[in-house]
Amino acid sequence: LELLYEPQLAGDRRVVLPYLLEIDAAHVVMLEGCGILPRRVATELLAVNRELAGRVAGGEDVLGSPASHRGLYTLYEGRYVERLGAETGGAAHVARSRNDINAAVSRLRLRDRLAELLRHGCRLLEVTAALAAQHASTVMCGFTHQQPAQPSSFGHYLAGVAFELTRSLEWAAASCDLADRSPLGAAAGLGTALPVDPRRVADLLGFAEVVESSLDAVASRDYLVHALGALAMLGNSMSRLATDLQTWSSAAYGFLGWGDELVSTSSIMPQKRNAYVLENVRGEAMEPLGALVSTLAGMKNVPFANSVEVSGEAGKHVWPALDAAVSASRLLALLVENVQVDAARMRSFLDDRETSLTALADLLVTRYGIAFRTAHGAVGELVGEGPVEAAPPAALTRRLTAILRRRLERPVDLDEVGVGRALDPEECLRSARYGGGPAPESVKAQLRVLAERREVLVARVEAWRSHRREAASRLAQAIEAVRGEAGEVREEGGAARG
Amino acid sequence: LELLYEPQLAGDRRVVLPYLLEIDAAHVVMLEGCGILPRRVATELLAVNRELAGRVAGGEDVLGSPASHRGLYTLYEGRYVERLGAETGGAAHVARSRNDINAAVSRLRLRDRLAELLRHGCRLLEVTAALAAQHASTVMCGFTHQQPAQPSSFGHYLAGVAFELTRSLEWAAASCDLADRSPLGAAAGLGTALPVDPRRVADLLGFAEVVESSLDAVASRDYLVHALGALAMLGNSMSRLATDLQTWSSAAYGFLGWGDELVSTSSIMPQKRNAYVLENVRGEAMEPLGALVSTLAGMKNVPFANSVEVSGEAGKHVWPALDAAVSASRLLALLVENVQVDAARMRSFLDDRETSLTALADLLVTRYGIAFRTAHGAVGELVGEGPVEAAPPAALTRRLTAILRRRLERPVDLDEVGVGRALDPEECLRSARYGGGPAPESVKAQLRVLAERREVLVARVEAWRSHRREAASRLAQAIEAVRGEAGEVREEGGAARG
Amino acid sequence: LELLYEPQLAGDRRVVLPYLLEIDAAHVVMLEGCGILPRRVATELLAVNRELAGRVAGGEDVLGSPASHRGLYTLYEGRYVERLGAETGGAAHVARSRNDINAAVSRLRLRDRLAELLRHGCRLLEVTAALAAQHASTVMCGFTHQQPAQPSSFGHYLAGVAFELTRSLEWAAASCDLADRSPLGAAAGLGTALPVDPRRVADLLGFAEVVESSLDAVASRDYLVHALGALAMLGNSMSRLATDLQTWSSAAYGFLGWGDELVSTSSIMPQKRNAYVLENVRGEAMEPLGALVSTLAGMKNVPFANSVEVSGEAGKHVWPALDAAVSASRLLALLVENVQVDAARMRSFLDDRETSLTALADLLVTRYGIAFRTAHGAVGELVGEGPVEAAPPAALTRRLTAILRRRLERPVDLDEVGVGRALDPEECLRSARYGGGPAPESVKAQLRVLAERREVLVARVEAWRSHRREAASRLAQAIEAVRGEAGEVREEGGAARG
Amino acid sequence: LELLYEPQLAGDRRVVLPYLLEIDAAHVVMLEGCGILPRRVATELLAVNRELAGRVAGGEDVLGSPASHRGLYTLYEGRYVERLGAETGGAAHVARSRNDINAAVSRLRLRDRLAELLRHGCRLLEVTAALAAQHASTVMCGFTHQQPAQPSSFGHYLAGVAFELTRSLEWAAASCDLADRSPLGAAAGLGTALPVDPRRVADLLGFAEVVESSLDAVASRDYLVHALGALAMLGNSMSRLATDLQTWSSAAYGFLGWGDELVSTSSIMPQKRNAYVLENVRGEAMEPLGALVSTLAGMKNVPFANSVEVSGEAGKHVWPALDAAVSASRLLALLVENVQVDAARMRSFLDDRETSLTALADLLVTRYGIAFRTAHGAVGELVGEGPVEAAPPAALTRRLTAILRRRLERPVDLDEVGVGRALDPEECLRSARYGGGPAPESVKAQLRVLAERREVLVARVEAWRSHRREAASRLAQAIEAVRGEAGEVREEGGAARG
Repeated sequence: LELLYEPQLAGDRRVVLPYLLEIDAAHVVMLEGCGILPRRVATELLAVNRELAGRVAGGEDVLGSPASHRGLYTLYEGRYVERLGAETGGAAHVARSRNDINAAVSRLRLRDRLAELLRHGCRLLEVTAALAAQHASTVMCGFTHQQPAQPSSFGHYLAGVAFELTRSLEWAAASCDLADRSPLGAAAGLGTALPVDPRRVADLLGFAEVVESSLDAVASRDYLVHALGALAMLGNSMSRLATDLQTWSSAAYGFLGWGDELVSTSSIMPQKRNAYVLENVRGEAMEPLGALVSTLAGMKNVPFANSVEVSGEAGKHVWPALDAAVSASRLLALLVENVQVDAARMRSFLDDRETSLTALADLLVTRYGIAFRTAHGAVGELVGEGPVEAAPPAALTRRLTAILRRRLERPVDLDEVGVGRALDPEECLRSARYGGGPAPESVKAQLRVLAERREVLVARVEAWRSHRREAASRLAQAIEAVRGEAGEVREEGGAARG
Repeated sequence: LELLYEPQLAGDRRVVLPYLLEIDAAHVVMLEGCGILPRRVATELLAVNRELAGRVAGGEDVLGSPASHRGLYTLYEGRYVERLGAETGGAAHVARSRNDINAAVSRLRLRDRLAELLRHGCRLLEVTAALAAQHASTVMCGFTHQQPAQPSSFGHYLAGVAFELTRSLEWAAASCDLADRSPLGAAAGLGTALPVDPRRVADLLGFAEVVESSLDAVASRDYLVHALGALAMLGNSMSRLATDLQTWSSAAYGFLGWGDELVSTSSIMPQKRNAYVLENVRGEAMEPLGALVSTLAGMKNVPFANSVEVSGEAGKHVWPALDAAVSASRLLALLVENVQVDAARMRSFLDDRETSLTALADLLVTRYGIAFRTAHGAVGELVGEGPVEAAPPAALTRRLTAILRRRLERPVDLDEVGVGRALDPEECLRSARYGGGPAPESVKAQLRVLAERREVLVARVEAWRSHRREAASRLAQAIEAVRGEAGEVREEGGAARG
Repeated sequence: LELLYEPQLAGDRRVVLPYLLEIDAAHVVMLEGCGILPRRVATELLAVNRELAGRVAGGEDVLGSPASHRGLYTLYEGRYVERLGAETGGAAHVARSRNDINAAVSRLRLRDRLAELLRHGCRLLEVTAALAAQHASTVMCGFTHQQPAQPSSFGHYLAGVAFELTRSLEWAAASCDLADRSPLGAAAGLGTALPVDPRRVADLLGFAEVVESSLDAVASRDYLVHALGALAMLGNSMSRLATDLQTWSSAAYGFLGWGDELVSTSSIMPQKRNAYVLENVRGEAMEPLGALVSTLAGMKNVPFANSVEVSGEAGKHVWPALDAAVSASRLLALLVENVQVDAARMRSFLDDRETSLTALADLLVTRYGIAFRTAHGAVGELVGEGPVEAAPPAALTRRLTAILRRRLERPVDLDEVGVGRALDPEECLRSARYGGGPAPESVKAQLRVLAERREVLVARVEAWRSHRREAASRLAQAIEAVRGEAGEVREEGGAARG
Repeated sequence: LELLYEPQLAGDRRVVLPYLLEIDAAHVVMLEGCGILPRRVATELLAVNRELAGRVAGGEDVLGSPASHRGLYTLYEGRYVERLGAETGGAAHVARSRNDINAAVSRLRLRDRLAELLRHGCRLLEVTAALAAQHASTVMCGFTHQQPAQPSSFGHYLAGVAFELTRSLEWAAASCDLADRSPLGAAAGLGTALPVDPRRVADLLGFAEVVESSLDAVASRDYLVHALGALAMLGNSMSRLATDLQTWSSAAYGFLGWGDELVSTSSIMPQKRNAYVLENVRGEAMEPLGALVSTLAGMKNVPFANSVEVSGEAGKHVWPALDAAVSASRLLALLVENVQVDAARMRSFLDDRETSLTALADLLVTRYGIAFRTAHGAVGELVGEGPVEAAPPAALTRRLTAILRRRLERPVDLDEVGVGRALDPEECLRSARYGGGPAPESVKAQLRVLAERREVLVARVEAWRSHRREAASRLAQAIEAVRGEAGEVREEGGAARG
């Protein structure tokens, strides 16, 4: 039985232990403050706690002994008992349980990992926006259904994707807020009769608030589902961006590419340059979806109370999903940052694609007062007769005039220069100023909005970080206050550390 | 080919058409206001629009003709052309496309359906909270890992679940806000050169803002994923509540049950009373999970641009999922509202389950200053010797005194009355006041928090509704303004309606 | 409560009723044969059964009355009671339950729907293979990582995809076999004390065998999961084929396209021809995945016994998934059948893509005995110097000779004609004969294997059909046998029908 | 960039390398046999291959150098080049590619892991069947909708579940057959012009056949989806079995339990005995579902050709899912094997649950010729009047007689002894012989069928194993044959190894 648990424990040990030590310290400080634990006992416990924390921070494996299916916590508490005897060593385990401790670890860990993801995500936003700004006037074919539609710009494309990426990251930030409540004090899920002060513990750990219900505190992991939803959506957006980049870097388009350090050669085909990191991005981006399903299915039909099925099993899928999301966003940022754009090929792709016909129809509507359906039909007929963009403006104007006369049963006096301008991709781009279109000034306005929202996100991440730092410093001071007031005991503890 | 599309269209037609009419009216009003459409044309279009809207509101099928794979929109526009001729009838289709119209329909429809879900969800919260208030002092066994743990109350259980339900509904409300931006003006995804006023359209349709990027406006459906995440999580919570209710209504527990109208008899076993509506709830609650997966997978690797794969296909799974979520929450509310609680069986289940031993250990810690591990060990030894709760307090106190003396190697003078009180379930319940525990006063405090949050939700739903009503009235006035100012034309239009 | 059930019932009624009638008839025939039901009663029941079956076959709604949450079965039995009184009308409901009846309906219905899917799937295989045969020698660029790799043929591509499609359909056929056992006789899941003959019922309904355990018979729906797995995999393959077809029909490639009846124009862009049916295919192909998840999650943590959660709820997702799979395969078959291939553009795409370099390296290995890594490196160097395929063979041979001399430190005497041939795409294609490569003769061999496997599938579907027909005829004869032997009663029954 | 790839590579290295070495050896043997590789070169390569294989088998890390995003294969080939120089060391990489090698590794690895799963799965079947045999006559309440239904036996329950488990394992075995084809020779997916012999390679690696199409060989991973479907279904069944075991081990039922080594105590509640390994089983059982979704979504919309997105990314989720499935089935087997059944509590639970009423109704039908609906109604009325099973048979018979007289309007002469027997749970159990019911003889027949099918499975697993062993021995002989025939070279190679 033990063997079956070992692999899982090994991975957790390294990551979870620092949180356990932090939670433990805050709990002991609070117990002492509430008069539940004598100062002497608290001081001894905190001395061991700080010593272990120091050794763990130094990379040492302080648990050492073999794994047990009774979990990391039992192993951990053993270290205290070993050092201080059963009575003092086990004294902190009052008014709490593995259940609320596990819940607290999952919340602290999630916040830290989400902050990491958001840092990398904001970096992706930043490089995408920078590239968009650089290419706000780079004419590129706009596509719908993968067919050439109308002239657009590479910058407009990138800004559009950045909006969706931004929203997914804002979603992830909201997950962080959702998790920002301390479950400590809930014990096994039924609270306690001991006069604890959960808000004090929350404050020492940097939680904004406490969970109101002890049952909710141990039974629910909905914040993990919320976070996984954000990761799955983020992955989705990344898969779409990666798909477009791969299409446009293919030989058939040749719009963009990467230097040797980001492409790979073939083991068999000497000419190949495969940007298959994009395939890694698309693949990793799907990992949160599976994790989301395992998590939701894992919680289904489980009694609403503490359950290993939820806390230990369903609750574990989020971590590799976060790894994958971080990895995918780092890789994608690297690719966006280092892409080499071939603006000339983007421009020449538009030649004779007839993408400015909508502009021509719009011209008939706005300048000549022709009804849209008629204009649309006339231009459709025109393109049915033969090439439009490739034709000389004069000849084209004559053909279109004839078509309109027949359809409207009245003469229309078209301006050859206007027709020519309407068919010019650069001109089309410049005039698509309304409705969030690709005109450079419109894209710049979009980038300003994106920058504001990105800055808000960055500020939120920074605020969490400083909030965490302040809490850590409050905890350190509180520990010192307890230990300082217990003079002799402290020296004893200090000796033990020496 | 046409045949393959028919089933889908039939369902949509009824639901989508009113949105199309509303969007169309707002668009025409705006076009006229911006000088893109002559007043005469606008008036004629609005006259047909209002007439069709009236007939649709009256239940009439105004489209009539057979379905087409070119979609509902083409069919719809045909009605205008039929009435006003191609030139006037098709005049409104300028500076827009099926793409931004479809996006607008999905956002308006989502908001309306989410508001409906939230109304039913708030109803579920309300009946759950009312039941919790009624049973804040109803002693019930608290469970972990499905084993008796400590005395709790039915009210505490219900309040705990209500917190998770509340968060899922708050998530759904946030989805509503996410969708609250108008995509109109984006046209095919590349904006327009015509000087449209998207904010005016947004205002007439009751959207809070506009989507900044035309590409984002047609390419993204992330708000559907956000909403489906909320529904899946809500379903998950409902499955857990339903699981507990079914367990407790089973013959082995007998804590609760329902009257004849909510249970079903067996076609073969005359004695059976099956509350299998709970199984329907659990089943329906899983539908959003599958829809979420189909939606996310459906968007994967799709170019970020307008695509039927995203807008038409991936975007359709949310609707049956909403149906299922509404149905599950209505059924569950009905069951919670009408549950018959057998408080006596709840109480007698606690007899001799030894669930007050934690309280006994806590007593040793707080009253006699014994370290937790020692107290826990001593009580464990006590229960190993034989029944605890069923034993007379005097004998029990003697046994425990002997155990402690041996373990502590010093005498401890236990108070028999205190020991007896500690073992009393009612007393345990009353004293579990900390950390969000089940003490009645603690549960009442939790219910106050729940009530506040529910009221906020109800107010948000109400605000959307009134916002929608105000927009509808703004739109009606704007239509009248256009038509009123065009005297003769209006009469003509009026005649057409007569 | 009733209202909540109505929508579901309406859909089921039409589809499920014929199965209920068939099951009922077989059950009554068996009961009579085993002496459990008197011949007179059996005759009367069968008379009503045949009458109802006739009316249902004629499109009549024989149930009429409003829906009930007690389900279709109760409503259905009511028709008998109405006609024959409670005693005779309810007589057939012995040794059975709604539970085993529902299980039987789901199995019969699945087999019929899978047979339908397989017919359309085999049609897709057929048109794909026919197209592959037609293009076994149509040179096309082979891609890996979306970059040009080596010369291949359109036929080789299609044959490759057809193998995966074939396996998914074989998986679906295996699901059919898995479902081919009768659960009737299991009653509520605990069998019966009445001496029934389940094999006789199985035989009359065309089941190959019976389910051995009555509990398994009502509790399990694993055959639905198996079928949904096949559908999800099939959808996956279809999404990949549709992706490639859409890429190759894009303007950048122009390898293929469709006539006007399969593409759609734009409501705004006069030049557009969107093959967005491919996007429908890709979208519909994802529906089984969500259904699979809802089904599996829906069965999780449900007691292994009859449960509405499994039979009614989790068991319902398969039907719309089958609709979507059938629709996607029909649409895709239509597209494959009607595709217009531009072989000239396929061929010209290969110009100067340097896709024959692997062949050149192979030539150095096989003809000149040069080690592969050296050959690969030399050709890599050659392409690094400048165009290869576009260079005159003589110049190229000189350059390569020089490179090899330097690398091998010995002279190599290359044959200019051989080098020229190695670089010719047609020649590359012809010589890729090994390892299942694209040489025409190799593709033809693959198509022969595909044809054999398709014929086996078609024969299996045909065998089910005839098996079902034979069972129906056995049932009809058995009914006649019962009714015929009961002369007067039969006339009476006939009168009742008149 | 490199850093991002490291974690994945570390895990793979250990597992994948032995397969690479095996594949390499087979490839070289074949190349030599086909005259593509000179004997001298083949001998040198095989010497290094055997040496590396020996060191890897001994636990050594033969790759050593830092990871690279170009993958394990490049690193691996580097070892040859280092030893034999570029020309000889790289000579084997002809007529192949990383693509077909990766495909071969995934197939070989899947077969080995599935064989492992099947061994543990068959062990679970075995202990379940053994427990069922032991409890074929242990009367237990049969449940539907979690309410007491009819008397059954624990053995009948276990046999029922075992059927579903068996089918899932048979599905997994079919996945193994699906994967049993060699993709080698496909090279990059476009075959080769070199006259290779793929059947020879297949034979040396123990594959039953070759993949016919080179494109299919590298592009498809459908066998992973098939296997994950089986694992997800297996997990589903295990979750249901674990749910029932946990319900029945709860204090409210007390039907079963486990010894101290399989339950866990609470860190806070001294009386608790939590069988939470069941919660681990249920949790781990959901992991394949998420993996299945990530795999299917990961393959969606990927061009049908070699792609890292499919081969590297989507293809990796199966391995941790297999770990979880193996772990869950081992844990569950341990729990089933060591369960302690309290037959007395199972029996006493049936007291006065009125579960024999169906039998009483059946008695009225079969012995007294009363129509089922009438009998069912009469017994329903009887139970409505008051307790049935608890009443003295004589009084009961009188009550029932009166009810029947009123309903039938004729006297019925009931036999008191028969009525009494019908209400006896043991008697009910014994007589439920039909339709796969729980009568001991019926359960024994079911167990015989299960044993046969389990033996077939065990034999299949054993056959794979011996097939693999034979292939390994063929490969070893072939290697020796090549090296033996090249005398001097071999000694040289031997020296290199010394």
